[in-house]
Amino acid sequence: MKDLPPTITTGALPASTKIHVAGQTHDIRVPMREITVAGEAPLIVYDSSGPYTADGAETHISRGLPEVRGGGWLQSRGECEEYPARAVTDADNGFASGSRLTPPFPLQRPPLRATDGRAVTQLAYARAGIITPEMEFVAIRENEGRQAAGARDGEPFGAELPDLVTPEFVRSEIAAGRAIIPANINHRELEPMIIGRNFKVKINANIGNSAVTSSMEEEVEKMVWAIRWGADTVMDLSTGRNIHNIRDWIIRNAPVPIGTVPLYQALEKVGGIAEDLTWEVYRDTLIEQAEQGVDYFTIHAGVRLHMIPMTVKRVTGIVSRGGSIMAKWCLHHHRESFLYERFDEICEIMRAYDVSFSLGDGLRPGCIADANDEAQFAELRTLGELTKIAWAKDCQVMIEGPGHVPMHKIKANMDEQLKHCHEAPFYTLGPLTTDIAPGYDHITSAIGAAMIGWFGTAMLCYVTPKEHLGLPDRDDVKTGVITYKLAAHAADLAKGHPGAQRRDDALSRARFEFRWQDQFNLGLDPDTAREMHDETMPAEAHKVAHFCSMCGPKFCSMRISHDIRAEAERQQGMDKMAEKFREGGALYMPAEEVAAKEGAE
Amino acid sequence: MKDLPPTITTGALPASTKIHVAGQTHDIRVPMREITVAGEAPLIVYDSSGPYTADGAETHISRGLPEVRGGGWLQSRGECEEYPARAVTDADNGFASGSRLTPPFPLQRPPLRATDGRAVTQLAYARAGIITPEMEFVAIRENEGRQAAGARDGEPFGAELPDLVTPEFVRSEIAAGRAIIPANINHRELEPMIIGRNFKVKINANIGNSAVTSSMEEEVEKMVWAIRWGADTVMDLSTGRNIHNIRDWIIRNAPVPIGTVPLYQALEKVGGIAEDLTWEVYRDTLIEQAEQGVDYFTIHAGVRLHMIPMTVKRVTGIVSRGGSIMAKWCLHHHRESFLYERFDEICEIMRAYDVSFSLGDGLRPGCIADANDEAQFAELRTLGELTKIAWAKDCQVMIEGPGHVPMHKIKANMDEQLKHCHEAPFYTLGPLTTDIAPGYDHITSAIGAAMIGWFGTAMLCYVTPKEHLGLPDRDDVKTGVITYKLAAHAADLAKGHPGAQRRDDALSRARFEFRWQDQFNLGLDPDTAREMHDETMPAEAHKVAHFCSMCGPKFCSMRISHDIRAEAERQQGMDKMAEKFREGGALYMPAEEVAAKEGAE
Repeated sequence: MKDLPPTITTGALPASTKIHVAGQTHDIRVPMREITVAGEAPLIVYDSSGPYTADGAETHISRGLPEVRGGGWLQSRGECEEYPARAVTDADNGFASGSRLTPPFPLQRPPLRATDGRAVTQLAYARAGIITPEMEFVAIRENEGRQAAGARDGEPFGAELPDLVTPEFVRSEIAAGRAIIPANINHRELEPMIIGRNFKVKINANIGNSAVTSSMEEEVEKMVWAIRWGADTVMDLSTGRNIHNIRDWIIRNAPVPIGTVPLYQALEKVGGIAEDLTWEVYRDTLIEQAEQGVDYFTIHAGVRLHMIPMTVKRVTGIVSRGGSIMAKWCLHHHRESFLYERFDEICEIMRAYDVSFSLGDGLRPGCIADANDEAQFAELRTLGELTKIAWAKDCQVMIEGPGHVPMHKIKANMDEQLKHCHEAPFYTLGPLTTDIAPGYDHITSAIGAAMIGWFGTAMLCYVTPKEHLGLPDRDDVKTGVITYKLAAHAADLAKGHPGAQRRDDALSRARFEFRWQDQFNLGLDPDTAREMHDETMPAEAHKVAHFCSMCGPKFCSMRISHDIRAEAERQQGMDKMAEKFREGGALYMPAEEVAAKEGAE
Repeated sequence: MKDLPPTITTGALPASTKIHVAGQTHDIRVPMREITVAGEAPLIVYDSSGPYTADGAETHISRGLPEVRGGGWLQSRGECEEYPARAVTDADNGFASGSRLTPPFPLQRPPLRATDGRAVTQLAYARAGIITPEMEFVAIRENEGRQAAGARDGEPFGAELPDLVTPEFVRSEIAAGRAIIPANINHRELEPMIIGRNFKVKINANIGNSAVTSSMEEEVEKMVWAIRWGADTVMDLSTGRNIHNIRDWIIRNAPVPIGTVPLYQALEKVGGIAEDLTWEVYRDTLIEQAEQGVDYFTIHAGVRLHMIPMTVKRVTGIVSRGGSIMAKWCLHHHRESFLYERFDEICEIMRAYDVSFSLGDGLRPGCIADANDEAQFAELRTLGELTKIAWAKDCQVMIEGPGHVPMHKIKANMDEQLKHCHEAPFYTLGPLTTDIAPGYDHITSAIGAAMIGWFGTAMLCYVTPKEHLGLPDRDDVKTGVITYKLAAHAADLAKGHPGAQRRDDALSRARFEFRWQDQFNLGLDPDTAREMHDETMPAEAHKVAHFCSMCGPKFCSMRISHDIRAEAERQQGMDKMAEKFREGGALYMPAEEVAAKEGAE
């Protein structure tokens, strides 16, 4: 198969170089982004963008990314083995055929699976006191090249952020269930990352095929584009045709964890009829996707039969797709869902591949009126019970939450989650803090996301401007990712993350010193900042101008501040002189002191 | 002079009609916006957009708006009189001449001024127990057509929001200094509004001429555009040429309070040399602008000499333009500023026209590192002292605040302000909660603005995407206004404003019932919402479709929710039947109860 046309966005971000920090225990190379700054040491920042932003990156998506988690990482443990994969069926791709069938990914490896019912999860290893390569990788990654803590004075609300993350700290957090590394043993292309309250706040971006049709390049590009701007994980929420094959293309090219909602594909397999879903179809789908390398599954096992009547009086009912599908199933069959009843069996699958649970919030509120209601919190308590069951099976777990929640009800969500879900990481959508701004829900939700991130949420699921209105396009995805990056960063600052303020300070120094290029390059979106500056001051000379078009040269407070600083320093020198003189006999006294003396007399 | 080309945006917002509610005591007509909703009562919302959004509005900016606050409102009090205006000098317009001179506004009225040193302020009347037409106007306006309180369960942090605002409540809040109605007696075109912690949170938009040149139509249009989307007040921050004449054009066409920073014009009059500023030039500028009808002045009287050294070690020094100008003056002359020393005399001018003080935060932090520092809070305490002096002269006062403040330091700003400024209304820029997102500072600041609004800030000064980068264009202004409207609304919800949730609920009901047009129309920006929906589902038939392009018909949780609701209601009927049967002898028992019984036995 010949190489596909190069539609994947590659190349370094402005003034940036990809560097790698080697592991001390394991043979790992942890990628980071080094931003060159004029007249200062370069700033090293977290880098989720994968090999695509390496200088001169050549991408052939039909080859997939290098297997950084190759045999050395996984099989050396001797607890998993290759086996013949489940045969791909026509149903897996929604019966697409002929020219409508997305071709399968060219390289098909036999999948790995734990042997003899073992648990090959990071949690199992952590509990056994083993520091895996994944754990050392994320420890190095979280420190962003720092050797010491920076300035911090936040309010952590019980989070305990160490000055520097050590591999042992990572292990202990995972062992305690407070953090997860979503890392399916079949996702060998993964650059591991960690999700937990005592680490940097992460963000997820959702992608999905459009009903119309998408090529595999388009689908891979969506993922590459999202991580270029900072998405830490990507959920593939595709439905309809070709989802098996497209998922393969995505995972083989994904350096970040990929999450899915297996229920969507299961529903496709039964022709979209919720009532026709069965445990067998669902189970088959879990295995199918686990073999492909999906890192976490959203599983709506907390939707129980007796909770459904609690949603009937809601203003917007059930707004989670998975939640509504399972509620319909439960109601139709008048019994508990197979997700709940078969939860043990699901755990057996998860632990065999180390797929992490993302316990779905099927009953999350879809409007301000429904926030923090009986249904929502009843489900949350069930998720807490399921967490304990999953932990007993050595499965990694995070808990999904919020939706639409006004500001004064956000903290209670975090508090309830910590209490009932035993500190398992919280992963929330927004929350949106008002319903009245369709078209701006990235912002209504960034407010809530920053706050709940501060309170302790470990990962924030982004919302794009198109939420409630349509499918996000490329610009919407970027806007959503940048918006959530700044919200997550605001949360890190407020929690007192020891590395967070470095970037604010570096950018602010650049701003004060009129280093415009540095200001752009240190920002989350250098391209947009530069374009906006160009609109009024396009000339290259303007990039060192000691003012901007907002106030013009005469009114530039920063320029005046430099004068003031110089003047104050000069006068401070004078004051010292004056003091000296006074000590020696008041040869000189500043005018206002004379006046004060006269006034007092 | 012939009418100018019609470049002013007019016409109603979608599905909206301007209605008027008559006063009971005074001869006033309070404008509101009624949004038609399919199958529900129309929703009445606050309307700051002025006559421009009336159906069939005809605008001739050379005539100005009707004088709604005509003789009946003002002169009937018999405490002010017309007098010959100060002569406009060439310096007032920056020595623009010939074709570069913006023509003066055609209709020049003699200004009004209090007689015999009286105070004609809303505060003076409130203290005297008088309910002015302005007070009744804002009381009616705040209720948005409500007859009773709606659902609310917020955390008000000490704010006391009544179920319904009465004119007497307005009077008492103003008398206590907790609220202001910025309403210069020379701004007769004003539709009064109130700024205070116990009222709806308001937003301000900044406009200003560009250095290049702007016509008067362009300048008026900036204001009209900002209020169309919801700006409650507009600050004219123009500098350079023609500012006197342009200001006249703006005020004569402005239904909202106009604020300025008189220092900017004073500095122009002395050729841009801060050190050359004098009390005489400044005083002359105050009178010039007071006669024109400016409703509030930002006055940086809190920047004191001894505070300047506190800013020297800051990462970004002094970032307020006015603050840096005054600091430079103080340092150069090595004395307290004339704003501080002549504060009494400034009060005499303010009370004669009822210009409200907006006590400027000249030392606000310009980056995360400088937040809540010694300089910032030292100035705040001085502003509190000045508040008492102004109140003693019956002047209305609000206090300016924030800038860049991380989330965990926001609450302290509100607490300190309440404590040291005696509950005078707080008016804050943002705050921006991180420095790292140039190009997205409307969002970094909306997070902080929503929070500080919740905590008690009465008015939020918007930030546009171009902050730090360049002059905002039309789109930036709209984005900034909508972003701040949603932040202010999120704050109202969280405070428990008794009218806020109506709009969220109406929109959410529309969303749940697939009334797409209603969903667009009830949002803050119907045009953008509709355009986004059109991108994937343009057909008119799609506007009643029972799904959207995000999930498609099969996966629509809302559609499924309707099925669930119907099913649950049907089953509830069945359950009642079943209970009846059981009571009569267990003829029927649901399957899972049988199972439960069997399990228990």
